[in-house]
Amino acid sequence: MIKVVILGNGNLAFHLTNQLLKNVEVNLVQVYNRSLEKIQYLKSKTSITNNLTDLKEADIYILCVSDAVISSISKQLDFKHKLIVHTSGNTDLFELKSISNKGVFYPLQSFSKDKIIDFSEIPICIEASTENDLKILETFAKSISNNVYQFNSQQRNKIHLAAVFVNNFVNHLYHIGNEICDKNSIPFEILHPLILETATKITNLKPIDAQTGPAKRNDSITIKKHKAMLTQNQQEIYTLLTKSIYKTYGEKL
Amino acid sequence: MIKVVILGNGNLAFHLTNQLLKNVEVNLVQVYNRSLEKIQYLKSKTSITNNLTDLKEADIYILCVSDAVISSISKQLDFKHKLIVHTSGNTDLFELKSISNKGVFYPLQSFSKDKIIDFSEIPICIEASTENDLKILETFAKSISNNVYQFNSQQRNKIHLAAVFVNNFVNHLYHIGNEICDKNSIPFEILHPLILETATKITNLKPIDAQTGPAKRNDSITIKKHKAMLTQNQQEIYTLLTKSIYKTYGEKL
Repeated sequence: MIKVVILGNGNLAFHLTNQLLKNVEVNLVQVYNRSLEKIQYLKSKTSITNNLTDLKEADIYILCVSDAVISSISKQLDFKHKLIVHTSGNTDLFELKSISNKGVFYPLQSFSKDKIIDFSEIPICIEASTENDLKILETFAKSISNNVYQFNSQQRNKIHLAAVFVNNFVNHLYHIGNEICDKNSIPFEILHPLILETATKITNLKPIDAQTGPAKRNDSITIKKHKAMLTQNQQEIYTLLTKSIYKTYGEKL
Repeated sequence: MIKVVILGNGNLAFHLTNQLLKNVEVNLVQVYNRSLEKIQYLKSKTSITNNLTDLKEADIYILCVSDAVISSISKQLDFKHKLIVHTSGNTDLFELKSISNKGVFYPLQSFSKDKIIDFSEIPICIEASTENDLKILETFAKSISNNVYQFNSQQRNKIHLAAVFVNNFVNHLYHIGNEICDKNSIPFEILHPLILETATKITNLKPIDAQTGPAKRNDSITIKKHKAMLTQNQQEIYTLLTKSIYKTYGEKL
C-alpha cells in the first residue's frame, strides 16, 4: 500500500485528504499544516502535525500549498529517496528544491470546500524526474482517477493557461450576465439552462463549430443596440470579444 | 386544442415543429417556408406551403424567422383577431406590423439541428399586447415548458444581451482554450470536466462568489508568465478580462 503525507489545508488538501482516507490502495499516514487548529478535525482519522521535522516516513509527500511557498517548503524536506510532489499547474517540476526525488500531481479542477467532488473523473496531470518515480506516481494517481495524463512542465503551464480562459474568465462572463439580470429585475436562474447547454455542447462539437450570435454573423444593428445598454467596462469586453469572434470567422466566411 | 402555424425553417422552427407534432394540447395545422423543398420532410405529418396567402386558419402564427424580416413578413399576415408572435430575443413586440394581435414567444436556448433538445426545461419568455392574448400564449407556452416567464420588450432585450455574454462569448473563450491545447499537443477533452464544473457551480453559487484564479488575487507573476505564452489577440482578451476581474474584487478586498 502506498504511504502518503499531505502538506497543506486549502481546498485541494481538504478534498484530497477525504479521498485518500477512503482509498483502499493508499495509507494516508499524516497531514501537516502550519496551523494545527485547522486540521484538528482529522485527529481521529490520521496523524496530524505542524512541525516539518516531525514528518512520518512515507512514499509520497504531496505539497498542497500556494505556488509561492513550494520552493521554500520543499527545501526543508531533506530526506532522500522519497518522492516529493507539488500540485500546481503553473509551477515547474524543478521549483521543488528538496534533495529528494521530484514529481508533480496536478488535478485539473476547480475545488470549493463546500462542494463534494468526484475525483474519479478529474484529469490528473503527472510528471516526475525518473521513470521509476513516474511509475509510483501513476499507480497512485490511477487509484484516484480514471483520467491520468503525463505532461511535461511546459505543457502543464499551457493547460493551466487554457484553464484560466475556460474557468476564471468564463466565470467572470457569468458574473457580467448576472449583473445585467440584477439591474433589470430578471432572475439570473433564467440563464442556467443556456449556460449548461453551452458547456455541454462542446463535449460533442468543437467550440469553433458551436459558435452562434451577432458577432459571428457581423450583425452590426444588434451589436450597436447591445453596446448602448452596457456600462463602460462591459462595453470594452463586448467590443473586444465581438472583434475577436468576427476575426475568427471573417477569415473563414 | 390550440391551432398553430409555424413560419420558417431554421433551427428553432425545426425543434419547435418536432415538439408541437407530439404535443397533445396543440394542433400544428401548417408549416410555411419560402422554399417548399426544405420542409418536404414534413409533408406526411402536417400541411406545408410556400405561399403566405395560403395560410390555414389558426390561433397562433409563430414567426421563426431572422430578426431582419420579422417586420416585412408580419406585414403580409393581415388577418384580424389572430395572434401573430415572433421568437426573437432582440426585437420589440411592435416590430410586428400585422393588423392582427401581437405577441412574443422567446425560448432562451441555443439550438443546433443535430442536437436533441428537451423543451420542458427551456425558459420561455412571453409578451403580448392584451391580457387575453397573454393568457392564450401562456397556455400554449406551458404546454411546452415548465419555465414560462412574462417580460416586456426592454427586459427581453437585456436577457438577450446577457445571453450573448454567457453563451456566445463563453463559447469563444472555450475556442481560445481549444486553440492553446491544439498548439501544444494537449487533448482539449482534458478541459471538459473543468468546463462542466464551472457551469454547474453557478447554479448553486453566485458567479461573484465562485471566482478564483490569478486575476482575482492579483498574482502578477502568474499573469506575466501567462501573457508571454499568448498570441496578440489572446493577450488583449487576457489583459482586459484580468483587469475587469481585478477591479470587481479590488474594490471589495
